[in-house]
Amino acid sequence: MLPLQLQPESHVPLYVQLRDQLRALVHGGDLRPGDRIPATRELAIQLGVHRTTVANAYAELESEGLIRGHVGRGTFISADGNGNKLTPAPHSLNGNGTVRWESLFADERGEEALSRLVQPAQPGDISFVAARPDEHFFPLEEFRNCCSAVLRREGAQLLQLGPSDGYPALKRVLVEMLRAEGLSLKDENLLITDGCQQALELICKAFLRPGDTVLLENPTYPGAIAIFASARVRCLGVPVHTGTETGATLGIDLAAVEATLLANRVKLMVLTPDFHNPTGTTLPVAARRRLLEIAAHHQVPIVEDHIYARLQSGNERVPSLKHMDRSNLVIQMDSYSKVAFPGLRVGWCVAPANVIERLRLVKQTTDLHTDQLAQAVLAEFTRRGMLARHIVKMRKVYAKRLAALEAALAKSMPEGTRWTHPSGGMAVWVELPPGFDASELLIHVRERGVLFAPGRYFFMQNPLPNTLRLSFTSVDERRIARGITILGEMLRIEMRKRQRGSHYFESARVALV
Amino acid sequence: MLPLQLQPESHVPLYVQLRDQLRALVHGGDLRPGDRIPATRELAIQLGVHRTTVANAYAELESEGLIRGHVGRGTFISADGNGNKLTPAPHSLNGNGTVRWESLFADERGEEALSRLVQPAQPGDISFVAARPDEHFFPLEEFRNCCSAVLRREGAQLLQLGPSDGYPALKRVLVEMLRAEGLSLKDENLLITDGCQQALELICKAFLRPGDTVLLENPTYPGAIAIFASARVRCLGVPVHTGTETGATLGIDLAAVEATLLANRVKLMVLTPDFHNPTGTTLPVAARRRLLEIAAHHQVPIVEDHIYARLQSGNERVPSLKHMDRSNLVIQMDSYSKVAFPGLRVGWCVAPANVIERLRLVKQTTDLHTDQLAQAVLAEFTRRGMLARHIVKMRKVYAKRLAALEAALAKSMPEGTRWTHPSGGMAVWVELPPGFDASELLIHVRERGVLFAPGRYFFMQNPLPNTLRLSFTSVDERRIARGITILGEMLRIEMRKRQRGSHYFESARVALV
Repeated sequence: MLPLQLQPESHVPLYVQLRDQLRALVHGGDLRPGDRIPATRELAIQLGVHRTTVANAYAELESEGLIRGHVGRGTFISADGNGNKLTPAPHSLNGNGTVRWESLFADERGEEALSRLVQPAQPGDISFVAARPDEHFFPLEEFRNCCSAVLRREGAQLLQLGPSDGYPALKRVLVEMLRAEGLSLKDENLLITDGCQQALELICKAFLRPGDTVLLENPTYPGAIAIFASARVRCLGVPVHTGTETGATLGIDLAAVEATLLANRVKLMVLTPDFHNPTGTTLPVAARRRLLEIAAHHQVPIVEDHIYARLQSGNERVPSLKHMDRSNLVIQMDSYSKVAFPGLRVGWCVAPANVIERLRLVKQTTDLHTDQLAQAVLAEFTRRGMLARHIVKMRKVYAKRLAALEAALAKSMPEGTRWTHPSGGMAVWVELPPGFDASELLIHVRERGVLFAPGRYFFMQNPLPNTLRLSFTSVDERRIARGITILGEMLRIEMRKRQRGSHYFESARVALV
Repeated sequence: MLPLQLQPESHVPLYVQLRDQLRALVHGGDLRPGDRIPATRELAIQLGVHRTTVANAYAELESEGLIRGHVGRGTFISADGNGNKLTPAPHSLNGNGTVRWESLFADERGEEALSRLVQPAQPGDISFVAARPDEHFFPLEEFRNCCSAVLRREGAQLLQLGPSDGYPALKRVLVEMLRAEGLSLKDENLLITDGCQQALELICKAFLRPGDTVLLENPTYPGAIAIFASARVRCLGVPVHTGTETGATLGIDLAAVEATLLANRVKLMVLTPDFHNPTGTTLPVAARRRLLEIAAHHQVPIVEDHIYARLQSGNERVPSLKHMDRSNLVIQMDSYSKVAFPGLRVGWCVAPANVIERLRLVKQTTDLHTDQLAQAVLAEFTRRGMLARHIVKMRKVYAKRLAALEAALAKSMPEGTRWTHPSGGMAVWVELPPGFDASELLIHVRERGVLFAPGRYFFMQNPLPNTLRLSFTSVDERRIARGITILGEMLRIEMRKRQRGSHYFESARVALV
């Protein structure tokens, strides 16, 4: 028996785990050229997984030239770990290499899920993967005008090195905008960052040391998990009520938050109360108040991810945690990336002045400051009222797409499939009937040109393999309908396969449910 | 006696150390309102430092309202650590704060020196502090044209999320440019970063864990020291021959490199062979060859900081380590910040493909990717030949300024002062007569509107307090002459003071030399 151990609670798909472990056995010399490995069916039973999982792992190893199937005889190792090129180009040096660079790398830390989410789709694919704005609606001419204006007015200044807390013109405009939205803040409460990903990284550096603990929603944004994993910070996940069961309050489970804070020394909570990624849920105002009470009682600050909050479908908007915060407990992260131009990488943090001062020093050591051309153009774009107009326009576009997605799901999904009903944001969360693995379904729908993000990417523990996220903002209504029709068809096909091959299904169910 | 311990080997000026330790004693309750503290003369003798050091520390504490002098009675603590506002605004919450944010910060890690280097000068000041290009020479119209062109041609693409390894157009242009310079590389050997500061940060994350060791020149760029301190990586400094003593080979001491590699498990060397910051020295080609042999023998990769290399005064250029590297040992970092527009924060790394792939994943977790508007405009600026033309122009401008600086130093500096003779780059390194502290000289010349960077900022160990760095690239010849005249005058005044008060000088010499 091969020494293989799959972790169903990992966010790494099972077939990827299997592929990597087999590859490691070859590299380590445990498997040698000519060794026979078990048939897919045999290994699936041994591991308690679906046969497709094993077949997918084998297919990838075969494409790498590491194993080879011989009809009637079985599958064999076809390369070894001693000098032969076992993996494709990225791992080989230029031929005359003397340094084994890989042996020098610090350990890798779960960047894979994030990597898959930010990959661009192939042209022609209907991709529900990325939660990003639709570039077809970018107001390019207005953007160009802003760009020319700032270069004419302040070109030399913005192209020179600047302050680490942000370009002054952008800080002024954002302070005004946020005040108009009801936040009371000054220049000293604001730091400009390279988007929200960097904001969270800076907060991590300023507050957390290896071994510290943070509390997050589980599931959550894989980019957050990757940051903390990379800093060797422990992540405690708290379940999120998705509302697919009737009657539950939406959003993070507050009783579980309290229990977690009581039982652990949590240093920060990192939460997305508005249009939570990936579930799309929004925490009601009463629950926000209670959450702030809990945080104040336990003296644990909250980092509030506010990047989706301006994308409500209707006109109602729940006040942010920062807005309701009477105890100075909340650091709010926000960004232009969801409401305007993600390619510019400009976001910001709102926090008490002493926190901003600390973050400014960390930002300085990280990259001195954020690009000032982008900051200056966005300041001008915002100051001229174009950002506000663009957001109003996009809210309508996205509301239509969300409605189209919900209609398509209602029409095409087989019975037993459930999904969330967000009132804005960028994604809907789908639960397939129990026992289905969304990663495996993806392999089939991908062949039909449809892509989504398996739920596994978003869990730091206890993954629900039957979940998936559909981002709807960059797919038009016609393609939404077509994509969901294909998704429904493939799901029905898989359901029929399961009914036929129920003895595999039973063994898989044990491992997967 | 107060429990004060100054570290002469720290890059933090002595008076700052003293100020901070006194402040800590008040905060900790060891000193209380009404307590008398020693007179400056008394404390200077106790600590073995110059009296000015103590006077400067007291002056800052007085301006914070923490101490107060009473004529004829002495100096007293005037505020306490219990609830009274002891420090200015940054440390106070909005009045109703419940979280003591400072108590949650991870430890600070030497960002101060970097902070002082990147501060903009006051208008009117003659500042030799920052090693940055002169914005008066920015080719703004050409830049605007490039900006318009890329926004028209590829606006939607560049404003959308993109690949973590860099905007494809910029990668293509840089591969061509670097090939034309004689480097053999492909797209897979190149990663775009937010300038060189981030490149080093990514390398640190990819390779180093807390407790690992790196070798650097001592003195070196404080931004590098800050990155490693922040990652809890140990820095071993190797002396640099500055050439102010006749006959020595310029650049890092190779015998000391070898001895350090033999005695320690060094994971990376981070070096600046061209126009080394802060000394301006350039490692000769024979020494580069030997350095590469040593690195290959010990299997320790070199991270080569190449940001100043294109700024030679004459036409000769020493081949880079990466160019001479036959063993695939070198990661080269480079940037647009010294040769063009630092406000855009765009740099790059050249490395083996597997290193780039690892760095790409780290970059992705850090901030997804570098701003694409800046990348696209720089690609166009470079492709049109404007970068090459701009570099030729600036080399001439800077060569004249360097000559003016050397002439002014020869004319104005008192005997016993020595300086380096760089053949390009952005800075000259000055050694004052032994026993002088450049930090204290700065206090006096600052009053006359002249600024420089004390050498202490650049040392990670064994600082030479009598050194300072003069960056000449953003000061015109007339102001260079005026600034150095003032520097010379103030130095002569200090020398005369010393001759008069030589018993203080003797006690200071013990601590400072």
